[in-house]
Amino acid sequence: MIQAAEFGFWTQIRKSPYFESTVRWGTKAFSVYNHMFIPRDFGDPEQNFWNLVNDAILCDVAVERQVEITGPDAARFVQMLTPRDLSTMAVGQCRYVLITNAEGGILNDPVLLRLGAAHFWLSLADSDILLWAQGVAVHAGMDVTIREPDVSPLQLQGPKSGMVMQALFGESIADLRYYWLREAELDGIPLIVSRTGWSSELGYELYLRDGARGEELWERIMAAGAPLGLKPGHTSTIRRIEGGMLSYRADADSDTNPFELGLDRLVNLDMEADFIGKAALRRIRAQGPRRRQVGLVIDGAPLPGPNTTFWPVLKDGAVVGKVTSAVHSPRLERNIALAMVSSAHAAVGEAVEVAGPFGRAAATVADRPFHDPAKRTAVAPVPRTA
Amino acid sequence: MIQAAEFGFWTQIRKSPYFESTVRWGTKAFSVYNHMFIPRDFGDPEQNFWNLVNDAILCDVAVERQVEITGPDAARFVQMLTPRDLSTMAVGQCRYVLITNAEGGILNDPVLLRLGAAHFWLSLADSDILLWAQGVAVHAGMDVTIREPDVSPLQLQGPKSGMVMQALFGESIADLRYYWLREAELDGIPLIVSRTGWSSELGYELYLRDGARGEELWERIMAAGAPLGLKPGHTSTIRRIEGGMLSYRADADSDTNPFELGLDRLVNLDMEADFIGKAALRRIRAQGPRRRQVGLVIDGAPLPGPNTTFWPVLKDGAVVGKVTSAVHSPRLERNIALAMVSSAHAAVGEAVEVAGPFGRAAATVADRPFHDPAKRTAVAPVPRTA
Repeated sequence: MIQAAEFGFWTQIRKSPYFESTVRWGTKAFSVYNHMFIPRDFGDPEQNFWNLVNDAILCDVAVERQVEITGPDAARFVQMLTPRDLSTMAVGQCRYVLITNAEGGILNDPVLLRLGAAHFWLSLADSDILLWAQGVAVHAGMDVTIREPDVSPLQLQGPKSGMVMQALFGESIADLRYYWLREAELDGIPLIVSRTGWSSELGYELYLRDGARGEELWERIMAAGAPLGLKPGHTSTIRRIEGGMLSYRADADSDTNPFELGLDRLVNLDMEADFIGKAALRRIRAQGPRRRQVGLVIDGAPLPGPNTTFWPVLKDGAVVGKVTSAVHSPRLERNIALAMVSSAHAAVGEAVEVAGPFGRAAATVADRPFHDPAKRTAVAPVPRTA
Repeated sequence: MIQAAEFGFWTQIRKSPYFESTVRWGTKAFSVYNHMFIPRDFGDPEQNFWNLVNDAILCDVAVERQVEITGPDAARFVQMLTPRDLSTMAVGQCRYVLITNAEGGILNDPVLLRLGAAHFWLSLADSDILLWAQGVAVHAGMDVTIREPDVSPLQLQGPKSGMVMQALFGESIADLRYYWLREAELDGIPLIVSRTGWSSELGYELYLRDGARGEELWERIMAAGAPLGLKPGHTSTIRRIEGGMLSYRADADSDTNPFELGLDRLVNLDMEADFIGKAALRRIRAQGPRRRQVGLVIDGAPLPGPNTTFWPVLKDGAVVGKVTSAVHSPRLERNIALAMVSSAHAAVGEAVEVAGPFGRAAATVADRPFHDPAKRTAVAPVPRTA
């Protein structure tokens, strides 16, 4: 098995407005997401994790493309796209939502931003929801405009991100509440800033609204933040698995429904408004999901890196599911994973086995998140032996 | 600027059923297409080109995902997706089609296969047409089923591909006409084979219908073909630019319309059937496209590799367009390119300049294809000086 290979920067895959900046600041490897390059390695993923949880990191997430929905019927159209009840969503708020198809399968798990009464952005995970939304609109008979605006987000995440934001925008930015957004400017660079992210740490996203000014914005933030401990970085696989956060296509796809993921809170089957997938999700809820996503703690030596294939989960020798995301947490000193298993084996404490490149390893179903600074830590770190 | 970087094989990006085989047979680099890895380098792209034009190559193009459309209204639904008149398309035929949105912009340029009266596959370029088609269907009021089947194509391309096909399937396969398909089996492996490809050479595609048997199929074809000169390979940027073939996202995107590409033959605005984008394309045709795709011959030293950014095209110092795909053709001994330029500068013979990493170079608008074995060669090779 090869772990990595050379990679050509074809024009068929887009570059972010921050591309040259991230290369200058030490990006070692990219992945591809929404048909764009995304930095995924600055040389040491474990150091990137510690930078994130102890200080702050700046991440190029321009791959989170926005689908902009405007027009007189925008609010009604957006509600049609998601099972989450949006009736109480205020202008200036953000919501984590699921986009479901007619079968109740998950097409994406974006953050929805409400910029105006009839002005929404879906900040996407990795699938072409622009095509989905435009396709739905063809025969919907609603007056909406759906396009991809010139918007490229950065994530500023970690406990010191608040200080960096104050250095950039002044003290008043401290008032920005969790999952709210605000218009802002930096040296005349037009931005939306929100208190959102993908790290389970204090964090912000800065949505650049002029792609020509990407390098200027990146350098401006690094200059303000470096004295406060800010490092260039990338979304952390370790931290997001600790936090039990989904990576679409790894942990969920269009054959996955919200109940399998335990995301019942994002589905309102009782609201009056209709949405795509409502009938199917009613059926699925009535029957109960056949599979459930669980956390797993996998015994054995520290994993050298994230899994590159789906690993079978076994019970008494029979396959009962698959590990979708696994990594070694240097903080918990455990191998932690997200897995999709049959509902019969989804109870916390259930003993199973995982078949990976290491052979077979014992594993135990565990609570998610594995680590939550605001609450308890579900999985205690292994005590260091002196 | 960096040309390549390490690349992690996350589970977020899918692997083809041929992945392990292509690694065993020497893949050096991958790209990502339709959320999957695709081999793009076996060590020497120029040798791959000569293998293709002189012998035959086997290419993993499982990234060409299929959107399967079945059901009583399948034919009517498929016609709604494309401006090409499908009224004369027989069962067993293939057609190169464009998928357009309501504004007439191109969402994809797939090969459409008609497997039955009410059974179609769209064999995709790089965008989620599964979501587009499912989205359109939500309110279309038609009885169709739209899904991604377990189908993974291989391309067998080059002048000797016919001999390899006969070694595999017997002499009768020689009857398969250009852009027709046939059901077939190889050691019980279920296949569709078609005389299609992306090389402008004699070629076939083999659509594997059981992802579990990918490595078996790959090895079976290589074993039969190697004595006839078959090599493992990848789609050739050199050959496809010589042939003037589009790479979606590089040469066209959702802001590109068919008339800009000179693909009027794929648009029938006079047929009775309605399709998405018809009104917009009527407007665009009446006004005439503002831009046109052209071929360019770029002077100067041989390009070291394909362009990694869009290069500005200039006339009298002003930007009038962009080079979308450029490469050195070792056969024509010229730097050849596809470019999108304003209609005023699109006539064959027009002298322009191109700004690239080499500085500024003189360039001339040229006929496409640059090379067509069946016809004349539009651009004569530079005579070798003795």
